[in-house]
Amino acid sequence: MNIDNLVKNIKPLDRSAMEKAEDRLNNLVKPQGSLGVLEDLVIQLAGITGDTIPRVENKMVVVMAGDHGVVEEGVSAAPQSVTPQMVYNFLHGGAGINVLARCAGAKVKVVDVGVADETLVHQNLISRKVRLATANMTKGPAMSREEALQALKIGIEIAEGEIDQGINLLATGEMGIGNTTPSSAILAVYSHADLSTIVGPGVGLNDAGVQRKIKAIKTALIVNQPDATDPIEVLAKVGGLELAAMAGLILGSALRQVPVVLDGFISGAAALIACKIAPQVKDYIIASHLSEEPGHKLVLDTIGLEPMLRMRMRLGEGTGAALAFNIIEAATRIMSEMATFEEAGVIMEE
Amino acid sequence: MNIDNLVKNIKPLDRSAMEKAEDRLNNLVKPQGSLGVLEDLVIQLAGITGDTIPRVENKMVVVMAGDHGVVEEGVSAAPQSVTPQMVYNFLHGGAGINVLARCAGAKVKVVDVGVADETLVHQNLISRKVRLATANMTKGPAMSREEALQALKIGIEIAEGEIDQGINLLATGEMGIGNTTPSSAILAVYSHADLSTIVGPGVGLNDAGVQRKIKAIKTALIVNQPDATDPIEVLAKVGGLELAAMAGLILGSALRQVPVVLDGFISGAAALIACKIAPQVKDYIIASHLSEEPGHKLVLDTIGLEPMLRMRMRLGEGTGAALAFNIIEAATRIMSEMATFEEAGVIMEE
Repeated sequence: MNIDNLVKNIKPLDRSAMEKAEDRLNNLVKPQGSLGVLEDLVIQLAGITGDTIPRVENKMVVVMAGDHGVVEEGVSAAPQSVTPQMVYNFLHGGAGINVLARCAGAKVKVVDVGVADETLVHQNLISRKVRLATANMTKGPAMSREEALQALKIGIEIAEGEIDQGINLLATGEMGIGNTTPSSAILAVYSHADLSTIVGPGVGLNDAGVQRKIKAIKTALIVNQPDATDPIEVLAKVGGLELAAMAGLILGSALRQVPVVLDGFISGAAALIACKIAPQVKDYIIASHLSEEPGHKLVLDTIGLEPMLRMRMRLGEGTGAALAFNIIEAATRIMSEMATFEEAGVIMEE
Repeated sequence: MNIDNLVKNIKPLDRSAMEKAEDRLNNLVKPQGSLGVLEDLVIQLAGITGDTIPRVENKMVVVMAGDHGVVEEGVSAAPQSVTPQMVYNFLHGGAGINVLARCAGAKVKVVDVGVADETLVHQNLISRKVRLATANMTKGPAMSREEALQALKIGIEIAEGEIDQGINLLATGEMGIGNTTPSSAILAVYSHADLSTIVGPGVGLNDAGVQRKIKAIKTALIVNQPDATDPIEVLAKVGGLELAAMAGLILGSALRQVPVVLDGFISGAAALIACKIAPQVKDYIIASHLSEEPGHKLVLDTIGLEPMLRMRMRLGEGTGAALAFNIIEAATRIMSEMATFEEAGVIMEE
């Protein structure tokens, strides 16, 4: 995979379609701009797709699953065995993401890029295991550069394949016990914030656990010295397999001119890597919710994204992104179904 | 209508159903509380309905329409003629609220409680006109106490009637050129905030217009001296017909143990009145979005409500509430469709 070629192939947004979309929005029977983020979404979707009246009815959450060697350091409240157990739960349709995706009329696809379970197999699981979990990043790189690129490429291929089959709205989901730790490490590489302000409890760590997590991240950064100017190196040294695949999914969506919706903090860290690889990718991304994880706001601010939902959620899986799907679809329906001032016979001037 | 009897007939939430709902949520396959506001919503809905697995599939936005004599003071960017024009637009299905209600599978009902147009008639319009617009509140009361009670009663009756026909989730919508002015006046009565911090541009007033609006509200408060301990008096002197009907809709929902979703600032002002009439009504209310109108956050804080959506919207009509319908329904489906830890075979303890 040639990263430079990939970056060149991601097009800027279609400014002409965006202007046409904005003109139409300004003729719809409402004060100009009064639908706020819904209008911004329509303009962004027009720019991404080139269609003035964009469509996003074929939605999918891709759940990337991988494990993390750093859990040896006691950085997670749940045991690593929960990762494959939850993968089966996704495949049986009983998880939060399954329910919220169904509510949005969206499909869920589950990809194993590195779950620490050799026996994990299911007819609906996409098995693309790069390795059995990352290595413990406090003792050396989480994975090799080649492995990081391989996981990234899997994400790109999955995005491209699904889009070629008709998907026109993707979201980044994930499962991987311990994965807020590499996410915080990635954010630490790209911010000057104190670790205590960006490292949180994940799904339920106590204070002592958070302290172990901060220590593990500090150690990993000292041991690995990741070069911030080389996002693939950051991914390899202090990232994760599902994080790399999620970054790839974002890049693949942009390559195919399809919008991609972020979920929570882990999605944000993956998006940060994707934007460091190809800055124009930011225009293809939609932020969904602001989670309870303390680094989430900073990672979104760093990329320049504004979340729509404040649900105090901290589940991951893609759940916040799935909740935003209906809102994004509603934005497109404003464009296709609302009357113009002329059609409605409404005259705003005295 | 005996207000004291009405207040007595609004039941407190069913604590037993709320505890059972929380127990079930804690057994679902996710870290406890990790679905945040979705879990809070389920517990609230259980308390309102008495059902551990509550249902909200029959949704309706009621758009209360009325005009305001205070528009003589130049407090609105749009002419009063837009109110009946928009009422027809609602009835023809071309407005923002029609589109967003359709996205949520919700009905829209439009009620004329005081539009300044004697010719307004349509087969689908509920005509309950109390009077042709309020009087100019800078020169005396906006309406009589009897008229305020009449509009309030209309709202109660409409909520009760729709709920008796099967509606199990209501939302407050409105149309009334100038209605952020009485809404700000109501908030001013119940807060110590400076008017400049709670009076905004509505749908598009310039700075000079906002200054006229502040002056009109100051004058109305001095001329009418509304007694804050008498919320019906506040409604009558500095409120509006659609505001009274919206407060009634909220009270009627609570009387029939059905949740009611607020839209923006005007809904917030109506809810504040409803809560001053019957404080336990607060438990039946769900806040949807935080609008751009500067007083909205204060009115929600004053009641004690937390909005889910940050869309920078300022259209009104019920649009923000309709966007929240899908989220509220998603919360109920978490309860009915998510697997338990046992069903999923997920073991969180090491």
